[in-house]
Amino acid sequence: MAGNTYGTLFKLTTFGESHGKAIGGIIDGCPSGLEIDLQFVQSELDRRKPGQSKIVTQRKEPDTVDFLSGIFEGKTTGTPIGFEIVNTNQKSKDYAHIKDTFRPSHADYTYDQKYGNRDYRGGGRSSARETASRVVAGAIAKQMLGDMKVTAYVSAVGDLVSEISYQELDFGCIEQNDVRCADSAFAKACEEKIKAIRKEGDTIGGVISCVIQNVPLGLGEPVFDKLHAELGKAMLSINAVKGFEYGSGFAGAQMKGSAHNDLFNEDGSTQSNQSGGVQGGISNGMDIYFKVAFKPVATVMQKQTALQKDGTLSEMQGKGRHDPCVVPRAVPIVEAMAALVMADFVLRDKSVRL
Amino acid sequence: MAGNTYGTLFKLTTFGESHGKAIGGIIDGCPSGLEIDLQFVQSELDRRKPGQSKIVTQRKEPDTVDFLSGIFEGKTTGTPIGFEIVNTNQKSKDYAHIKDTFRPSHADYTYDQKYGNRDYRGGGRSSARETASRVVAGAIAKQMLGDMKVTAYVSAVGDLVSEISYQELDFGCIEQNDVRCADSAFAKACEEKIKAIRKEGDTIGGVISCVIQNVPLGLGEPVFDKLHAELGKAMLSINAVKGFEYGSGFAGAQMKGSAHNDLFNEDGSTQSNQSGGVQGGISNGMDIYFKVAFKPVATVMQKQTALQKDGTLSEMQGKGRHDPCVVPRAVPIVEAMAALVMADFVLRDKSVRL
Amino acid sequence: MAGNTYGTLFKLTTFGESHGKAIGGIIDGCPSGLEIDLQFVQSELDRRKPGQSKIVTQRKEPDTVDFLSGIFEGKTTGTPIGFEIVNTNQKSKDYAHIKDTFRPSHADYTYDQKYGNRDYRGGGRSSARETASRVVAGAIAKQMLGDMKVTAYVSAVGDLVSEISYQELDFGCIEQNDVRCADSAFAKACEEKIKAIRKEGDTIGGVISCVIQNVPLGLGEPVFDKLHAELGKAMLSINAVKGFEYGSGFAGAQMKGSAHNDLFNEDGSTQSNQSGGVQGGISNGMDIYFKVAFKPVATVMQKQTALQKDGTLSEMQGKGRHDPCVVPRAVPIVEAMAALVMADFVLRDKSVRL
Amino acid sequence: MAGNTYGTLFKLTTFGESHGKAIGGIIDGCPSGLEIDLQFVQSELDRRKPGQSKIVTQRKEPDTVDFLSGIFEGKTTGTPIGFEIVNTNQKSKDYAHIKDTFRPSHADYTYDQKYGNRDYRGGGRSSARETASRVVAGAIAKQMLGDMKVTAYVSAVGDLVSEISYQELDFGCIEQNDVRCADSAFAKACEEKIKAIRKEGDTIGGVISCVIQNVPLGLGEPVFDKLHAELGKAMLSINAVKGFEYGSGFAGAQMKGSAHNDLFNEDGSTQSNQSGGVQGGISNGMDIYFKVAFKPVATVMQKQTALQKDGTLSEMQGKGRHDPCVVPRAVPIVEAMAALVMADFVLRDKSVRL
Repeated sequence: MAGNTYGTLFKLTTFGESHGKAIGGIIDGCPSGLEIDLQFVQSELDRRKPGQSKIVTQRKEPDTVDFLSGIFEGKTTGTPIGFEIVNTNQKSKDYAHIKDTFRPSHADYTYDQKYGNRDYRGGGRSSARETASRVVAGAIAKQMLGDMKVTAYVSAVGDLVSEISYQELDFGCIEQNDVRCADSAFAKACEEKIKAIRKEGDTIGGVISCVIQNVPLGLGEPVFDKLHAELGKAMLSINAVKGFEYGSGFAGAQMKGSAHNDLFNEDGSTQSNQSGGVQGGISNGMDIYFKVAFKPVATVMQKQTALQKDGTLSEMQGKGRHDPCVVPRAVPIVEAMAALVMADFVLRDKSVRL
Repeated sequence: MAGNTYGTLFKLTTFGESHGKAIGGIIDGCPSGLEIDLQFVQSELDRRKPGQSKIVTQRKEPDTVDFLSGIFEGKTTGTPIGFEIVNTNQKSKDYAHIKDTFRPSHADYTYDQKYGNRDYRGGGRSSARETASRVVAGAIAKQMLGDMKVTAYVSAVGDLVSEISYQELDFGCIEQNDVRCADSAFAKACEEKIKAIRKEGDTIGGVISCVIQNVPLGLGEPVFDKLHAELGKAMLSINAVKGFEYGSGFAGAQMKGSAHNDLFNEDGSTQSNQSGGVQGGISNGMDIYFKVAFKPVATVMQKQTALQKDGTLSEMQGKGRHDPCVVPRAVPIVEAMAALVMADFVLRDKSVRL
Repeated sequence: MAGNTYGTLFKLTTFGESHGKAIGGIIDGCPSGLEIDLQFVQSELDRRKPGQSKIVTQRKEPDTVDFLSGIFEGKTTGTPIGFEIVNTNQKSKDYAHIKDTFRPSHADYTYDQKYGNRDYRGGGRSSARETASRVVAGAIAKQMLGDMKVTAYVSAVGDLVSEISYQELDFGCIEQNDVRCADSAFAKACEEKIKAIRKEGDTIGGVISCVIQNVPLGLGEPVFDKLHAELGKAMLSINAVKGFEYGSGFAGAQMKGSAHNDLFNEDGSTQSNQSGGVQGGISNGMDIYFKVAFKPVATVMQKQTALQKDGTLSEMQGKGRHDPCVVPRAVPIVEAMAALVMADFVLRDKSVRL
Repeated sequence: MAGNTYGTLFKLTTFGESHGKAIGGIIDGCPSGLEIDLQFVQSELDRRKPGQSKIVTQRKEPDTVDFLSGIFEGKTTGTPIGFEIVNTNQKSKDYAHIKDTFRPSHADYTYDQKYGNRDYRGGGRSSARETASRVVAGAIAKQMLGDMKVTAYVSAVGDLVSEISYQELDFGCIEQNDVRCADSAFAKACEEKIKAIRKEGDTIGGVISCVIQNVPLGLGEPVFDKLHAELGKAMLSINAVKGFEYGSGFAGAQMKGSAHNDLFNEDGSTQSNQSGGVQGGISNGMDIYFKVAFKPVATVMQKQTALQKDGTLSEMQGKGRHDPCVVPRAVPIVEAMAALVMADFVLRDKSVRL
């Protein structure tokens, strides 16, 4: 398998299966001399961990990150930062019964066909457990970004869609509700929705919005590696993501140029921001904002037909403790990937001028 | 500037400004022994060129591609394929008057701020002229893909949105109409829309849909380089693109898991295809389909305020011959980028097994 | 710090400081379905570990490798192989006294100047301890290489230089002597030499020769990534290496073309092998052989002047347990890097033809 | 074929066969705002071109470089620099007779076996003609290096080996003699040697030494991408190179640590420079110096046995105008590759600190 590295200069490489000994990663390219708040890293990881609220999976995993290198006397040394999260309850379960079963809309079948074998325990490498490593690296990246601020929040759960623009929302409220909406009334509605869905033994999709503020002008490498193209790739690489749009997005496709153009102010800022903070693939100093669509979790607590390795179909039913809706726990993952992208572009921009 | 290379094993690197001597590129990693139909390459380029119909820009540029290396006696030799497209009318124009002007929603300002200077003639490197090189490379990639078939078409112009699923459309009709819709009635409506917009001196956005058929099972590197994540990046790297969704896309975020899951048939195919042909970042053998949103062209034939380098605002009016709607000419570009992504994954997949 | 990854498709990324919690790495791109003999990996590591014989450093480090992912039920799954070697005696020592000292011909000064700070304990990242991770990865690579056989041995210690060609040597003898020569008489002389040098409180350089047999024809990417160029880079990336030559090497520069040319046999093999198994950057099926020059270890048990951070010079004396000659323990490192290079080229070669 | 790109941030990708339409390349990552002296680029190319003196091949090729992009109004814009050198006399020759012949110690056989076909005209991609593109890019890199000065010269032709250290040589004399030695008496002897060899219809190898002065402290990424490891790879990627050593090199392997260590001065410089300006993979501010061994040109004007595609052996005789000794024309190539390496590390170093 290739493709376990993200980034060009600020590089994260991850390893680990859901039920192997550990997951973790190596961050290569983090500048030296950066003070690192390790508590902050753990607190970011806690935002993602299972069992944190009533509307997410009730599995208990402590997800404690252990740094193995690259940080000395509280600061980065410029050497690679190795870290791991030991899988604490990987021995207790028996997954032998799903060894030869391909669950619908999971990666079981494609992994098995591509690789010829797979670690079937808990989804193995295809499990979203891998994203814990991204959150760790994102928490380091955030500390590199200085004033730049990355904030994500849930803006839709199923057909409950918030149309309020981010400027009118209260980001302070995001961590105050279990869904991670930036609007407490909307949060309440979403929470009810998720509970109802769970009661049905079903799951539901959702949308996460993300805003990056205080972005320096000039980030992005404007042909194939446009800033928004890398953001898009980063988001689409998160499990269950089905779509990405930034600035005016799909709605922009319906607009006229005369309305869509962002007219300048004298200081180079713009009056509107249909561009979503990116022009020609380069940040223009305005806020970057984008949306990420997540499909419903594939494991439902209902009977569904699955494919057996021998080519027969048979009924199976999801069991165990799964998320009825992935977006509350995906908020820190979206932020982490956004932070990784921005950190990488900050470093890439340094070689543009002598 | 970094970021002028796309691909991991099938790699395209492009160069060239809109009004420099030439644009072109190098394809490195194309397998040897591939018979190349050079006419086909030119015909793909002709689908993108200006002046091809009444609803696109009336500029005349022959856009003739010249291959300089890598093809010998009609076949690839495995060595890098260098090619160029000479800019034939780059000398005639005088762009000195926009040297110090930053047009709204163009890349003028961000390029100038990032690089400190820029080739201001016709947008320079930020011009969509660069995509001609992508079409050349995509036409080589298509010839590598064998049975795999990449088809793009216009599915929306402004608020005219076709809801017909691709299975019910007639791909044979795409090149029969100037808009490149896969439905002649819809094409007619779109064409009228574009003409009306042009008459207003305005521009309009649109959506291109793309379908990839006969995809082998197993393409994609499933963590950061998921198949759909690379498709997303590739599409978002095209000028004017604001959004990307595949399979159920943003609509999938509103669905329940029980409805969204694609149940298997005994042969491993699925009854539905909400997954858009990709599960866990790996192709599952079903059709891949996705949508790409394009914003309206920023150059409108109306007065708009522009920013001067000295920090003053002044009125300017677009002149020259520009596209009122970019999607008809962007269809071959979407196909080209999709073909490049698929060609790269075909090669990457080869190292998965000994 | 960038540059902690080696390889294009078979990729090793390493992390870890000499006295941090652990060192380790991630191998990404190892094909799936490969049976892995974990004992073999540990046995390779044991060939490199300190304290294994009387002529190497007497430090005791068990260097036990722990695999964290990527191997399931005895086989690679195609997912990244994470591994670590816990640093067991890193807490016992106090390095505070060398915190502000730059030892001559060490990396202390350059690291400090480049990064602004450093983990000074035991050389930190610049310690050759990092190469243990390479040996682990090399032992995986060797198991991927099938019939290809990589054998290194000591061919010079100081001015004791063996001129016997590898064909006349007995590779079976290499692990039978502490110096790892392929000739027991020569081994005896080298061992005496090293003991004498150690008695002087001094160190001595040496040369390692390496032979790769049963090489398939066609490995190597022949412009910048010529097979021998990557071998050279890989060897020069090992601590203390000062030179690399393959085939006829520097002696070849003194030869005439008529004598240097390797005339063909009818089966495509060659009568002589001045080319060292590589022609035009591509393996020709003959044995690959090369030499690697190592400088003497910089830490001598004699008084030497060192630079203090405050710009003063002061006398220091090496203490602790260091190698008087690095080549005996470097033999498995040379083999490991050679195996990594070959494994990478085996995978790269797969995309040359459809 | 992969491997046609050199560099990480300052990247050169080349294309072109000896007798195709053109050779050339794209430099991506050159910083913006750099004033470029195009005459200097051409003058560097002229140092490499055939026919420049009596002791090199008498072929006449003007080798005029044409820049296609990336330089505007005399300065780099930060966009990729595309360039080409048209092959002017590629049509006149008929190579059909060697189509099925594999010359000894050429790349004919390995290319043919690896790729299944090849452009056999004049060696095609394996011809050293490719290095002209490197010289162009190197001449751009040199202009980026500011005070850093890269100087190469011939230090051996066959068994004529100059032992004078570079500090005692007169670099001003290098371009004053046809061999490009830095010592006119030695140059005279080498010239006689080359003429005598040519008279025999034979060829001879040689050594090029290279010195880089005014190197800033801190360049190099010290694990796999050590400064000297990249220099080694870059040199070994040049056609006909068999070995590389830097600083004390192979001679250093015979030394004791007490003699080899470079003791510091108070300002961080060192009293001796066995390290060759690199410690732990990072430049220490002292001069970098290294040697590159070239084998004799394989095409001799004598009868030699060649392999036919059908597996038979037959006599052939080199004809045409070839170099009796490659080193005089390789001097600018060594410099170019060294400049590319240093330019890349200058840019890479920028991301080490925020």
